[in-house]
Amino acid sequence: MRAFRVVTCILLAFYFGANAQNKTVAERLGYSADTKLLILHADDLGVAHSENAASITALEKGPLNSASIMVPCSWFPEIASYARNNKAMDFGLHMTLTSEWKNYKWGPVSSKDSVPTLLNKNGYFYALVDSLQNYADPKEVEVELRNQVKKAYRFGIDVTHLDAHMGAAASTPGFTAAYLKVGKEFGLPVLLDGRVYTMNHDSINSLLDEKTVVVDRILSMEPHTYKQGAKQTYTDILENLEPGLTFLLLHPAFDNPEMRAITIEHPDYGSEWRQADYDFLMSDACTEIIKKQNIKMITWREIRDKITREK
Amino acid sequence: MRAFRVVTCILLAFYFGANAQNKTVAERLGYSADTKLLILHADDLGVAHSENAASITALEKGPLNSASIMVPCSWFPEIASYARNNKAMDFGLHMTLTSEWKNYKWGPVSSKDSVPTLLNKNGYFYALVDSLQNYADPKEVEVELRNQVKKAYRFGIDVTHLDAHMGAAASTPGFTAAYLKVGKEFGLPVLLDGRVYTMNHDSINSLLDEKTVVVDRILSMEPHTYKQGAKQTYTDILENLEPGLTFLLLHPAFDNPEMRAITIEHPDYGSEWRQADYDFLMSDACTEIIKKQNIKMITWREIRDKITREK
Repeated sequence: MRAFRVVTCILLAFYFGANAQNKTVAERLGYSADTKLLILHADDLGVAHSENAASITALEKGPLNSASIMVPCSWFPEIASYARNNKAMDFGLHMTLTSEWKNYKWGPVSSKDSVPTLLNKNGYFYALVDSLQNYADPKEVEVELRNQVKKAYRFGIDVTHLDAHMGAAASTPGFTAAYLKVGKEFGLPVLLDGRVYTMNHDSINSLLDEKTVVVDRILSMEPHTYKQGAKQTYTDILENLEPGLTFLLLHPAFDNPEMRAITIEHPDYGSEWRQADYDFLMSDACTEIIKKQNIKMITWREIRDKITREK
Repeated sequence: MRAFRVVTCILLAFYFGANAQNKTVAERLGYSADTKLLILHADDLGVAHSENAASITALEKGPLNSASIMVPCSWFPEIASYARNNKAMDFGLHMTLTSEWKNYKWGPVSSKDSVPTLLNKNGYFYALVDSLQNYADPKEVEVELRNQVKKAYRFGIDVTHLDAHMGAAASTPGFTAAYLKVGKEFGLPVLLDGRVYTMNHDSINSLLDEKTVVVDRILSMEPHTYKQGAKQTYTDILENLEPGLTFLLLHPAFDNPEMRAITIEHPDYGSEWRQADYDFLMSDACTEIIKKQNIKMITWREIRDKITREK
């Protein structure tokens, strides 16, 4: 049975990876296969005013061209209001199943009674993806993801895509199936890379089809690259970008008392890190490298409308 | 029936207002009736990091001697951690049934399904006390207040009292009965003034007894007094303090990007207002007036332990 599944997966990967008449994602979008396509993306909007304010500035005045929003957080209404009033911007939802900071917490959009396996004894999401993997029922993950999307629509956001906070919603086959299913229900592309074809799970395979868009690579600054500095890290990434569709994610925010208190005792992805992300996005260097490297910026809206919702 | 109730209330007021052998609250606490007793109190802890940070400083380095915490807010874990580690401080709970700011919201501690009449269509508390009065079932108010107290205990807070955010929990007879009942369950004094004796509601009357503590007056800066400046307002209040137990409430916070964004479009009780509260608390003038006017500072812990929990 297991061997059969593996073979099935390989065939699926071969079929859909080379689907739509053997075209790459770039070609399916109307670009040549050797085009360096980039979505320059901010995660974690809604988590804090600092994050909202910095991301909005980087979207309006920098090359940042896409972002995703955490619906369960207290600052969601602020960014939802901005998105509602700036419909041309590319806003997706950062599907949230964890609450990772020490002194600042959130819980589900769903009624707590309907998603008990997603919550700790205090009614908050777990801090760690590992806890979620240990305790969460994928059916409840599906309920919560759907409720986050429905709430975003109720707030008037023209949602362009879904992605996964801390990767949690794509961290097990069961969660990934829920994530894909909810995306499909709302006609939204979901951020995934080629690993989805190797997950070997019937409920995932049944959701993959010719409209599935899988990015060629997901890149970000990591704790070990942060040590060499944000500017060096992102310069290396952008100067060595390979052809195909790259999703580069950052976390721009202002290093201020709010952000320092949220990220207390956690320098990785912390307040200074986020300021460094913002500073790089707003630097002339960032814009110049993108131009010099002949990188073509695209949005999730383009993917959604050209592929996911194509009739 | 109504006339009977009014008579009952007047009798109750007479009996309990002059209860414990006709002693005033001051006398019941062991002070002379002409003592000017003051609880100098900060509301709204937990609403924001700015509010937590300013209130902690005013408690540690200023004359502020009591504060209350909003359990449903995202910053609750930060102040709960502080309270757990500073057991001598006087922390009560700011029973929260409204979410009043435009772009920053919170909902119940309870599962949403169990308190539907307290919530708007987005799962948040109503912005206005008026909406709560129109829609909320007092039974659900009781459920939510109880869950807020239970959560605070789970976080290790030595709760000294309950009070009511925006007065919501004491804004109708039905809510007030729930508020009194929950206070009684946990052996906690609840902030109320003499108006409780005139509410004319059987379920309230049955909860009033010889351990009920009613403050002689609740004072705060109001929008019309704010116009003359915080320093002038509080100086007038403190220089004209009458004998008996006064509860003076402030909202210290730092006027920074977080607080300005929370209180956007709402100068009353806004970011500058809260900074002015902080500045007055931290001024030499505040400490000097309290000393010069021979004001005796007391805490809710003293009231709780000498009266509410007295055997």
